Amino acid sequence: MTPVPVPAVRTLAADLAQVPPGEIVTVRGHVHRRRELSAVAFLVIRDRSGLVQAVVDRAAGTAALPPEETPVEVTGTLSTNPKAPGGHEITAPRITPLGDPAATPPVEIWRPALTASLPTLLDHADVAWRHRTQRARWRLAAQSLRAFRETLDAQGFTEILTPKLVGGATESGAGLFAVDYFGREAFLAQSPQLYKQQLVGAFERVYEIGPVFRAEPHDTVRHLAQYSSMDVELGFVRDHRDVLDVLVGVLRAMVQGLAQRAAAELDLLDVELPRIPQEVPVIRFADALALLGADPAEEDLSPEHERELGRWARAEHDSDLLAVEGYPLAKRPFYTHPWTGPQIPGGPWSNSFDLLFRGVELVTGGQRLHRHRDYLSALAERGMSAAAHADYLRAFEHGMPPHGGFAIGLERWVSRLIGAANVREVALFPRDLHRLAP
Amino acid sequence: MTPVPVPAVRTLAADLAQVPPGEIVTVRGHVHRRRELSAVAFLVIRDRSGLVQAVVDRAAGTAALPPEETPVEVTGTLSTNPKAPGGHEITAPRITPLGDPAATPPVEIWRPALTASLPTLLDHADVAWRHRTQRARWRLAAQSLRAFRETLDAQGFTEILTPKLVGGATESGAGLFAVDYFGREAFLAQSPQLYKQQLVGAFERVYEIGPVFRAEPHDTVRHLAQYSSMDVELGFVRDHRDVLDVLVGVLRAMVQGLAQRAAAELDLLDVELPRIPQEVPVIRFADALALLGADPAEEDLSPEHERELGRWARAEHDSDLLAVEGYPLAKRPFYTHPWTGPQIPGGPWSNSFDLLFRGVELVTGGQRLHRHRDYLSALAERGMSAAAHADYLRAFEHGMPPHGGFAIGLERWVSRLIGAANVREVALFPRDLHRLAP
Repeated sequence: MTPVPVPAVRTLAADLAQVPPGEIVTVRGHVHRRRELSAVAFLVIRDRSGLVQAVVDRAAGTAALPPEETPVEVTGTLSTNPKAPGGHEITAPRITPLGDPAATPPVEIWRPALTASLPTLLDHADVAWRHRTQRARWRLAAQSLRAFRETLDAQGFTEILTPKLVGGATESGAGLFAVDYFGREAFLAQSPQLYKQQLVGAFERVYEIGPVFRAEPHDTVRHLAQYSSMDVELGFVRDHRDVLDVLVGVLRAMVQGLAQRAAAELDLLDVELPRIPQEVPVIRFADALALLGADPAEEDLSPEHERELGRWARAEHDSDLLAVEGYPLAKRPFYTHPWTGPQIPGGPWSNSFDLLFRGVELVTGGQRLHRHRDYLSALAERGMSAAAHADYLRAFEHGMPPHGGFAIGLERWVSRLIGAANVREVALFPRDLHRLAP
Repeated sequence: MTPVPVPAVRTLAADLAQVPPGEIVTVRGHVHRRRELSAVAFLVIRDRSGLVQAVVDRAAGTAALPPEETPVEVTGTLSTNPKAPGGHEITAPRITPLGDPAATPPVEIWRPALTASLPTLLDHADVAWRHRTQRARWRLAAQSLRAFRETLDAQGFTEILTPKLVGGATESGAGLFAVDYFGREAFLAQSPQLYKQQLVGAFERVYEIGPVFRAEPHDTVRHLAQYSSMDVELGFVRDHRDVLDVLVGVLRAMVQGLAQRAAAELDLLDVELPRIPQEVPVIRFADALALLGADPAEEDLSPEHERELGRWARAEHDSDLLAVEGYPLAKRPFYTHPWTGPQIPGGPWSNSFDLLFRGVELVTGGQRLHRHRDYLSALAERGMSAAAHADYLRAFEHGMPPHGGFAIGLERWVSRLIGAANVREVALFPRDLHRLAP
């Protein structure tokens, strides 16, 4: 096996603007585009920061140039050329391949727009993620994660990492992946719900970003068997409004983070960042039904209802976000806290909310029960077994403060932000009913 | 169910120093300690930031005070008292329980030192993590994660999140948890190795923090069935030394992050931060054997050898870290790149390293193969199937740069930092051969 040649110090494409023209520079990257004309050949090099073009004088009798996607090192004289990709050229280049010539990729990475079908992108994810629009999509995800953590770190939250292998179901028995755990049956966690609640007792404010698993046999554009959940839980709240305030602050920070650190990606993907006014509107579920002229006995909002509410929030409040609070208690998980605000006819209602983003549900959250006896009542009312939740319930015997939280699905957030038709477009290597590879 | 009382604005215990004595303040937290004397009672309140003491004049005829761990709100007059925990007292307090009286915890949270046995701590993890030494341990973990990401973000790395459900084995078939994946067999990922390598082609520098799963039926103080892996991979390296440089920089940043943000926790746990000199010593495996007077045919270092090397690094280089490079190729995974440095007798050696921390292996890393044909040879030499690795291999047909990486086990790092006897002490809810709950 050939040793890698020891190169000179490398300059990133984006840093070439700081180098005086005429200097000798070395860049390393993939051959992004190879164009061979009769007298001259162009080799555009792509590194993590951008592009730079090498100009090869073919009269000088150059050997065959490496094909697209081959990793190379290029050393030569820097010049500026506003017409060149990235604005710089390297002339009289010495081109050293850093690997074997690349096979022709199944997706044309150099084309400005991706034309391949989604199945092709998914089947060849390893190469497809090299395309600029794909990379831009994931960078929005990565910068969202970063802003999420930074703003919570600044508010006294502690990051936690909880088990993904559990002995029982989190919320319901459906949709669980079974695991052979040293001869015993275990399941993949559907959510860190029970763990993050318990740890509120220790750290008061916690968050976790991690995989969650749903064995839902749905073959839709919205379902993944594994997705990335951005979970938050906080204690000593008055009610769900304190939770909603944190959620809106987190989304605001994510939007600001993207504006500051991913402007080029937003521009490339033609993303309009959400409008989040100083006061995000909040409407009660019962009032929303009335506003929509819907049957007051409805127990949930239809997608069309949500879209209409989204239009209303934009028109009346200049907001792309709308919180709907006070959902019917029966439609929420057993750990949901009942409504504690001013009395509303009908019900029982809950201290929970959905956050709509441009008329589509983005996040569900709310206040949880915190008294042991309230858990026992809630489970009994639903005909659920207290024994099956023994480990969970025990945490509430030892003094849990009023608390609540929410979970943002990373893939849902990014796909709705960029207007992706399918959530699979924004997962690096999605898993679904049919797909377990690559 | 009783609604939570709407309280005044809350002040954190740590912020009381900014409040003038004599003002009325409201704090919220758990009852940390209740002490009832004949004329007076003390209620120490614990919130996420610290402690504050409420002084109750029993002559005033107070009702029974809530027991330890009950969440409460306390409003009263602030005064300073250097002898009080946290240095502040609240007099003439109005004490409002925010939940039911807490049952007596199985671990005495208020005692300065934890005396409970490890099984007790693990069985009652939800409550045990409330103890100050437990919280301090996890805060070292959380601040390590934060510093890890911050330093990599600043160096142009992109965070990735990869599948934990995979169709085949990563490195070997042993130690895999099998999952029923919609009627097909899948496995829990033992490492993001293959994914992070593939994504080097797209993002050049990537990292991931996530769970990895090992179905190793070992009941030791070092093994967990799920642990948190801090994975890094970077492209366009010269050799493993570029990888090692990033690793040392990451550890340096983690140590600095702890010094800056977790000084109180380090002090409480009596942790001496590692000495990391400007130049961390690197010794070749073959030279290490010679230094130890060991058989040059040895293929690995024994724990006693590692300890001796650790003492040597401390004595000769004033360093708690020592990198051992050039391990025998046959003892490393199939994707390991052969040695490319000056020729060493014996071998074949590899461009891989172990990083010893105080004489114990902390991190393994190195350069990987990047040419497709080198993978085919390496698999064939080991009698491994290329077909079983088809998805993985395909990524190397399309031009992968020279690259390498490493993985830090979070629990291993924290347990060695604090000198924990058992890695379970630093996992929030550990999973092992016997333990699937809580």
